[in-house]
Amino acid sequence: MASSCKIKDQFHEFFPEMLRCLKNSPPLHKLPSMQEWVEKIVEYNLKGGKMNRGMAVVESFMILKNHQVSEEEKNTAIALGWAVEMLQAFFLVADDIMDGSLTRRMKPCWYRTNNLGVKAFNDSILLESLIYQIVSSYCKNQHYYLPVLELFHDVTMRTSLGQAMDLHSAPNPNEAPDLSKFTVETYDAIVKYKTAYYSFYLPVAVAMRLAGIQDNDLLKRAEDILLPMGRFFQVQDDYLDCFGDPEITGKIGTDIEDGKCSWLIVTALPMCDSAQRQLIEAHYGLKNTESVNLVKSLYQQFDIPKLYTEYEERSYKELTQMIEGIKHQLPTSIFQGFMEKIYKRLN
Amino acid sequence: MASSCKIKDQFHEFFPEMLRCLKNSPPLHKLPSMQEWVEKIVEYNLKGGKMNRGMAVVESFMILKNHQVSEEEKNTAIALGWAVEMLQAFFLVADDIMDGSLTRRMKPCWYRTNNLGVKAFNDSILLESLIYQIVSSYCKNQHYYLPVLELFHDVTMRTSLGQAMDLHSAPNPNEAPDLSKFTVETYDAIVKYKTAYYSFYLPVAVAMRLAGIQDNDLLKRAEDILLPMGRFFQVQDDYLDCFGDPEITGKIGTDIEDGKCSWLIVTALPMCDSAQRQLIEAHYGLKNTESVNLVKSLYQQFDIPKLYTEYEERSYKELTQMIEGIKHQLPTSIFQGFMEKIYKRLN
Ligand SMILES: [Mg+2]
Ligand SMILES: [Mg+2]
Ligand SMILES: [Mg+2]
Ligand SMILES: [Mg+2]
Ligand SMILES: [Mg+2]
Ligand SMILES: [Mg+2]
Repeated sequence: MASSCKIKDQFHEFFPEMLRCLKNSPPLHKLPSMQEWVEKIVEYNLKGGKMNRGMAVVESFMILKNHQVSEEEKNTAIALGWAVEMLQAFFLVADDIMDGSLTRRMKPCWYRTNNLGVKAFNDSILLESLIYQIVSSYCKNQHYYLPVLELFHDVTMRTSLGQAMDLHSAPNPNEAPDLSKFTVETYDAIVKYKTAYYSFYLPVAVAMRLAGIQDNDLLKRAEDILLPMGRFFQVQDDYLDCFGDPEITGKIGTDIEDGKCSWLIVTALPMCDSAQRQLIEAHYGLKNTESVNLVKSLYQQFDIPKLYTEYEERSYKELTQMIEGIKHQLPTSIFQGFMEKIYKRLN
Repeated sequence: MASSCKIKDQFHEFFPEMLRCLKNSPPLHKLPSMQEWVEKIVEYNLKGGKMNRGMAVVESFMILKNHQVSEEEKNTAIALGWAVEMLQAFFLVADDIMDGSLTRRMKPCWYRTNNLGVKAFNDSILLESLIYQIVSSYCKNQHYYLPVLELFHDVTMRTSLGQAMDLHSAPNPNEAPDLSKFTVETYDAIVKYKTAYYSFYLPVAVAMRLAGIQDNDLLKRAEDILLPMGRFFQVQDDYLDCFGDPEITGKIGTDIEDGKCSWLIVTALPMCDSAQRQLIEAHYGLKNTESVNLVKSLYQQFDIPKLYTEYEERSYKELTQMIEGIKHQLPTSIFQGFMEKIYKRLN
């Protein structure tokens, strides 16, 4: 994608315009103190990320339209890209509180700033409501307005269902984890709902609606590739949570402490003898460094980093084949663009 | 309203039908464990309240249609009434976490059940996403589908802005309150946004859209009465938080402990001499019984209960006049119905 650098610049340059639009929205325009507060939340939580999801809306749209778009069409795609980033910010602000995370994108999590604590939940809700201000400002009276709204509603619900499954699979504080819950099937359901829909399906689906595609079967074909791609991405996320470099990922992992149903635990468990299983039962989900290190050294013993590299290779091949299989229905470069960004990523 | 009792029964009888519809919604229908969880959240958080907001959709719609409606139209109104109740549940679950409340509708707050804690915030998000499943299930392909969606988006944003103003006016833990923030102007802005829009404007506006009203000026006329009515209601809420009977209100007030910008503090402050002001500065917003009782006895000294009764009388008269003024545009019984329910309420 030769022009992807230029698109990235345009995407970032649009930020002040989006912010202006939000501040002038009917609910906000008479509330100067809240305009300031919304600006602060948006600045802190939407900048500094990789913007992969938001950019994917614009890139997919450009490919679908064969790069023949007006300035206005491009701006609408960019605005909707920011709406997807807004959805992400909404979920991350809430997720960090619920997971008790410390940092995000090299900075303290939002709830740890401004004396917020749990009050930050309300800012998460505010971020979500901004999605619909963006969509209505840029899509009103267009044929794709309603389908785009429905996409955001549907994907929001799926993501919070994924979060619920994720939270339910983890043990309560001071209780031993229920290892029987940590199966590949549970893992697959969790990651599909909590990550794949909003990170992979949503940007492409929004671009397709914006490009005028009304064929639901075509959206389904895209979904069939994008959800497995999202799984691949979440396995990477789980791996980096434990073995990534916080200097590069920008966050300090807490999956072991939180007793999460991660790819690492799901992969390790079937290899455990009964003593190793007991070790996990006794230490997984505890918030102390010693317990975390015991689990990590077990992962090392099982050669998890090597298994991860093998999984990454295998997945890459499978996904490449799936992309090949869709080439008569949709431009493959949409999906290849995603793969390039996530394959062998370190953050 | 002779038939309001019958409507109430029909409203409650519709609950299982709504639940079935939610469980069959595309995001949920393949996830039996989540169907169970959603049922649990919905049962716990939507039942046991007064259902005034939800019922108001149905009653207003019936009045607007001169009680000439088909079974299907009535069911749509009921479904949208439940969607308004869903919005309320979404905000209450989150609000109780942020306020550290203990009970709601005579039961422990949701976050205090099932070992949830802050994880309950995700259930609040889930409840919100159910709104849009209800609306799409019952309104899809209707001319009022999009306007109703926009009402929910707009009012959700206004409510979370109100919550933000409410949270920002209260002091941080272990800090003295900033009494200069507790003005009538601030109070009016907070209650308009955090309560009046969703509790008073939304039910009537939804009913108006459903009845086919497309004239935005007419919605504005309704808003001009419903927002002051919402203020009246919130003043009552603040009064009952301190002076209500928890056996009747179903909740234990925490406004003084939380340092909230309530009608009581806004009314008391201008009457304070400098010693009394110091007492409030030293004790308002502290989570201990002694401090709370000191503030309460100051309220008694200032005859706040008497001032409240006077305010209630005065407000009632003003609102009655405003209703009278709209009689050529809209049926006054819509607004009188609200007044009957809230005037002199004890819970
Ligand atoms: Mg997390
Ligand atoms: Mg999480
Ligand atoms: Mg992670
Ligand atoms: Mg509260
Ligand atoms: Mg509150
Ligand atoms: Mg209250």
